[in-house]
Amino acid sequence: MKSEFVRILTESGFTGYKADHCAGIFTLNSLEGVYSHGVNRFPRFVEYLRKGYIIPDAEPSLVSRAGALEQWNGNLGPGPLNAILATEGAMEIASRNGIGLVAMGNTNHWMRGGTYGWMAARKGFVFIGWTNTEANMPVWGAKDFRLGNNPLVFAVPYGDEAVVLDFAMSQFSYGKMEIYQLGLKQMPYNGGYNMKGELTADPGEILLTRRALPIGYWKGSGLSLLLDILATILSGGFSTHEISQKEAEYAVSQVFIAISIDRLNNSGNVESTIHNIVRNLKESDPAESGTGIRYPGENIVTIREENTKKGIPVNKEVWQKILAF
Amino acid sequence: MKSEFVRILTESGFTGYKADHCAGIFTLNSLEGVYSHGVNRFPRFVEYLRKGYIIPDAEPSLVSRAGALEQWNGNLGPGPLNAILATEGAMEIASRNGIGLVAMGNTNHWMRGGTYGWMAARKGFVFIGWTNTEANMPVWGAKDFRLGNNPLVFAVPYGDEAVVLDFAMSQFSYGKMEIYQLGLKQMPYNGGYNMKGELTADPGEILLTRRALPIGYWKGSGLSLLLDILATILSGGFSTHEISQKEAEYAVSQVFIAISIDRLNNSGNVESTIHNIVRNLKESDPAESGTGIRYPGENIVTIREENTKKGIPVNKEVWQKILAF
Repeated sequence: MKSEFVRILTESGFTGYKADHCAGIFTLNSLEGVYSHGVNRFPRFVEYLRKGYIIPDAEPSLVSRAGALEQWNGNLGPGPLNAILATEGAMEIASRNGIGLVAMGNTNHWMRGGTYGWMAARKGFVFIGWTNTEANMPVWGAKDFRLGNNPLVFAVPYGDEAVVLDFAMSQFSYGKMEIYQLGLKQMPYNGGYNMKGELTADPGEILLTRRALPIGYWKGSGLSLLLDILATILSGGFSTHEISQKEAEYAVSQVFIAISIDRLNNSGNVESTIHNIVRNLKESDPAESGTGIRYPGENIVTIREENTKKGIPVNKEVWQKILAF
Repeated sequence: MKSEFVRILTESGFTGYKADHCAGIFTLNSLEGVYSHGVNRFPRFVEYLRKGYIIPDAEPSLVSRAGALEQWNGNLGPGPLNAILATEGAMEIASRNGIGLVAMGNTNHWMRGGTYGWMAARKGFVFIGWTNTEANMPVWGAKDFRLGNNPLVFAVPYGDEAVVLDFAMSQFSYGKMEIYQLGLKQMPYNGGYNMKGELTADPGEILLTRRALPIGYWKGSGLSLLLDILATILSGGFSTHEISQKEAEYAVSQVFIAISIDRLNNSGNVESTIHNIVRNLKESDPAESGTGIRYPGENIVTIREENTKKGIPVNKEVWQKILAF
């Protein structure tokens, strides 16, 4: 999979380590089961390269530095490469200053935000990061799209692995709803509104109204707004509203915060503290007997092991499309 | 109201400016309509002082400093005073370093987290802060309490006011559910599980099972966990699990992050950027005609103006109890 991605990226203008790193992210995301932002997303990534939304050889440039805070212009480079650079930058600042914040405007879709959380946490850092997106969700109480689903990531080390929370502000993505619809299934919980203005778990009805539900109703709506404001002002980049006026979703704004655990006074106890908290969580009394309680990121480890053993499952049509590039 | 609070706090061991500042927070929270963490909470605050959970003259002490990150011990001082100090500390670091993080362990309930968001935002800072709490919510898929509702605050300046999001990880607090139950009302949305393991909007049924719903189901459950892990490791303080083993909710862990807007390259445009984003939000097409779309914190301004004009409404029983202290 990776060598096919490298071939296509190289033919699309990626040079040197860049084809390898970018192909690596798409492959890793697929290996870890996030196909929607791995192999299944690769064709759209190539399309965006061809349309000039993503500039393969663009390098981010430093706009301004104030102590532990840096503002960067992503110069429309490939989102995953820009995000790796921003994550490494935040970690480097954090090594010196305890905490480091890199805000990057004018960058591109980072694919799976959790990727950068895993990266930082496995090197001993706390990671907090988020991105804005085009508008794809109504504000609480409204019908039209004004908010993005603005994925937010929190990650901490957990032994050789990590606890990684990577979640969007909508309860279900449109991609997930389409999968439920194709399977003629209701979603397990309400995910939006029907034409009568009632909450529903029917994916088809929500895909008609396009009124997807923010997590926690008014709470997720507010969080989406604040994440957009912060990504925009900290990076000096475009807001969800501005991105939505473009012909496609590009030139987004992102925030990367790293905190160095080594610089904490209690650094020697952090590993056992996290283990104790997670162990306590997993000792919960399950609502349904036989179901285990999982921590965020635990599934990723299971899927990675399974896919490493058996190979990454791909949709044949998607893979044929990729081979034909 | 404030002078009564000052009298009682002075009689309870608060000296000098401390009685004034602490009484000020309880009064402000009431003035701004958050009675549950203002006047209605004051009796419990006094009870905790008398039981020795809160030590009136304790001062926080610096444990460790690493660049833009400081770890403090709250020494069980009054939560609102410790939180003011931590917020001011984070702003001071941010003025020098762009961003500042103060983590404080062994501190006490900060009452309304939004208070510190408003404080920082009105001085030109971005604020991000959260606290852990005792366990009061089951992990997603479980029945027993292992997670706190861990309120999280985001704030940015907005003209002379602020956009302030202050939300707990449970969809409804037990206090809110009790109010619905007293009024014999159903909640507007599902807030937890009944004895049959079904989602319900009936407050009485949820108060029986104590299975309150995290916002966004598994997402809010994960966010609560990560906020607890971060507050605990960054402050070197107690986790939700450890706090829950105490005889009452005290010695909690909190995080205060400030970012200086003045230190941004685009500082001159930040005000108009935020205005444009909020204006776009408010131009949404309402789902029900006649209902306005509000931004987080907008209600606070309305209630503050109303209460300033008409006085702060108080529950007579609560006020009699306070007068009798």
